[in-house]
Amino acid sequence: MPVNLPIPSANELQPVSGLQLGVTEAGVRKANRKDLTVLLLDEGATVGAVFTQNRFSAAPVQVCLEHLTSGAAIRAMVINTGNANAGTGVEGLSRARSVCDAMAARLGVTAQQVLPFSTGVIMEQLPADRVIAGLSAAIGDASANNWLRAAQAIMTTDTQPKAISRQVMLGGRSVTVTGMAKGAGMIRPNMATMLGFVATDASLDPGLVQPLCKSLADQSFNRVTVDGDTSTNDSFLLVATHQAGNPQITDLSSADGAALTAALLAVAQHLAHAMVRDGEGATKFISIRVEGGKSTVECLKVAYAIAHSPLVKTAFFASDPNLGRILAAVGYAGITDLDQGLIELHLDDVHVVTRGGRHPNYQEADGARVMAQAEITVRVGLGRGNCTDTVWTCDFSHDYVTINADYRS
Amino acid sequence: MPVNLPIPSANELQPVSGLQLGVTEAGVRKANRKDLTVLLLDEGATVGAVFTQNRFSAAPVQVCLEHLTSGAAIRAMVINTGNANAGTGVEGLSRARSVCDAMAARLGVTAQQVLPFSTGVIMEQLPADRVIAGLSAAIGDASANNWLRAAQAIMTTDTQPKAISRQVMLGGRSVTVTGMAKGAGMIRPNMATMLGFVATDASLDPGLVQPLCKSLADQSFNRVTVDGDTSTNDSFLLVATHQAGNPQITDLSSADGAALTAALLAVAQHLAHAMVRDGEGATKFISIRVEGGKSTVECLKVAYAIAHSPLVKTAFFASDPNLGRILAAVGYAGITDLDQGLIELHLDDVHVVTRGGRHPNYQEADGARVMAQAEITVRVGLGRGNCTDTVWTCDFSHDYVTINADYRS
Repeated sequence: MPVNLPIPSANELQPVSGLQLGVTEAGVRKANRKDLTVLLLDEGATVGAVFTQNRFSAAPVQVCLEHLTSGAAIRAMVINTGNANAGTGVEGLSRARSVCDAMAARLGVTAQQVLPFSTGVIMEQLPADRVIAGLSAAIGDASANNWLRAAQAIMTTDTQPKAISRQVMLGGRSVTVTGMAKGAGMIRPNMATMLGFVATDASLDPGLVQPLCKSLADQSFNRVTVDGDTSTNDSFLLVATHQAGNPQITDLSSADGAALTAALLAVAQHLAHAMVRDGEGATKFISIRVEGGKSTVECLKVAYAIAHSPLVKTAFFASDPNLGRILAAVGYAGITDLDQGLIELHLDDVHVVTRGGRHPNYQEADGARVMAQAEITVRVGLGRGNCTDTVWTCDFSHDYVTINADYRS
Repeated sequence: MPVNLPIPSANELQPVSGLQLGVTEAGVRKANRKDLTVLLLDEGATVGAVFTQNRFSAAPVQVCLEHLTSGAAIRAMVINTGNANAGTGVEGLSRARSVCDAMAARLGVTAQQVLPFSTGVIMEQLPADRVIAGLSAAIGDASANNWLRAAQAIMTTDTQPKAISRQVMLGGRSVTVTGMAKGAGMIRPNMATMLGFVATDASLDPGLVQPLCKSLADQSFNRVTVDGDTSTNDSFLLVATHQAGNPQITDLSSADGAALTAALLAVAQHLAHAMVRDGEGATKFISIRVEGGKSTVECLKVAYAIAHSPLVKTAFFASDPNLGRILAAVGYAGITDLDQGLIELHLDDVHVVTRGGRHPNYQEADGARVMAQAEITVRVGLGRGNCTDTVWTCDFSHDYVTINADYRS
């Protein structure tokens, strides 16, 4: 049961003009399920992308990078579930390319204008013939109103689809941002991957799309973790179709630029948080904010040490204010000159630790009250500088072990 | 139920001449249990030590470092369970010092000649008065034959005591190495800590004791992990009493030096492995050997990434040869120029992955056969150089969550 995650309805997901989505059953791994999704982009769209840093990146990730760096104008994306095409060597690359070739032929574009995405089992060859056989049906299904059906089709072991829209007025024109994502961990059982796709019809300088994509990822998808396992296939795409008719945005710090950025960030954060809320076995949604760091890097070291500690995560599951576990994680986060005498710790509004020791007014009952909530903010003060960063995660429950130990059986 | 860990018997634990151990009930946290242990060292003993790298190191660790760096000849160690004296600020330091003061007064030595150790709950002040009140009884109990009773008294949530002896002939004299340890994770529930104490009566150059201690730790206690949570209190001590009458060892690469080192390493590795075998909820004992690295550091990065991956650990628990999870962990271990096309993976004798892809002869049934064993060796080849290192860990079971989620209740 996801933590405070409403299921989107089809009519709240706004179409993005210039982008169509189609789905079909290709039978990649299992029959009778939609497992192939295509995104078709009108001419003139701009695409930004960030991918997993895993050195065992999957074949489709490597092909995406080749096609994006070729400078070709992207016109289509092909997403299959059921098989991640990861750990598949040279043959895997060849099969990912064959899917792009086939899609390009059907659309009358070049293979470099197609981006492939795969999610599913690792170390098995992609049945590319079945993917290719399904392409025409998926193209035939394409419509701008298919966001919910696409969000459902890219699910693997997600318990519910993840999608959202925002609209803003820019220069008197309504501009839409709609996105979808899948994933319930940095890597799922033997199904890999988080995939995120956010699209807007806003008109903006095409040169802004890639840096905006990176900036959005760093405030959303790159700040969530379920279990610290970075997938081989993680991908986040930002598509701008430029068709809304608003005055072109050339500066993201302008009023219109800021409004668009805010809408995009709201969508990206909703999707990233949705993966945590639907995290494997999650019963709590935890925000970890680290303040007073000398750099963002060290804030993140501390935040991830807390977020990945199995002891901290099981304490959240148990609603146990066992806060020494958080201090221990702060201590081993890798800041070699940390002064424990400067550490402050709050749990929501409860001041737990001051100057590295238990706050004199702290009562365990107050900690227990906060720990019993479904949403909790952990705030750590390092007392070293002015940098701050936040990471989102979930707790660690019996169901996590059950899901991951039993999944393939 | 620990994995293949026999319970030591009192008569197999050999006394180390020049070292006596005593235990008593001090009532630190619970009544009717032995929770205070003292080690008394004859004049002339040499002590080496390594401690947690956690920046939230506990008060006793800080006091140990002060006393060891003062150059004073160590004559006693005081170990309490029930309270870790960690996250206790200035008051915690004062209390740890008061225990050393009281012990020193009873022995007629200086406080700098006493080392304190604490393990138990974090963020609560140590009831130093109760520890001090128990010192005389513990001293009165001291005997060279008390290793098993001491190994029992330093347990917290360990399911069984961990101790072992080895004897070697050096220059016609029998030399003894006996050690004990506690811990079932780098950090236990809200009980913290692994503690390891290894003693030998061998005569050796006192200047060799500290480097030998560090070297032993790096091949034993510093190569095991249960959950990646580094305790605030971890301590490993090597005591040499020099009383065996063997010709003094001045070179560890001599025949006698090598024989002593081998005996010490066998004891230290047994104790370190014992902590993993008794790891929280452990059902499997896993050796992770990484070969072909450019440096030991990168071998360890890969080994720990595998050892700490919740997905890998749950797959071991499930006896599921879900080996893509291991490849994914190799990929995100932080070697930025890793060539996935050079990766080899063996599971015991089964060749699973070659050149980064599934080995053509690999059958899942072979992987399943190895995964069903209680002891498994994972061997990863990086194809980058000639360095090798090994880490030992356990699997991740429902019981881990149960122990850590329910412990304090």
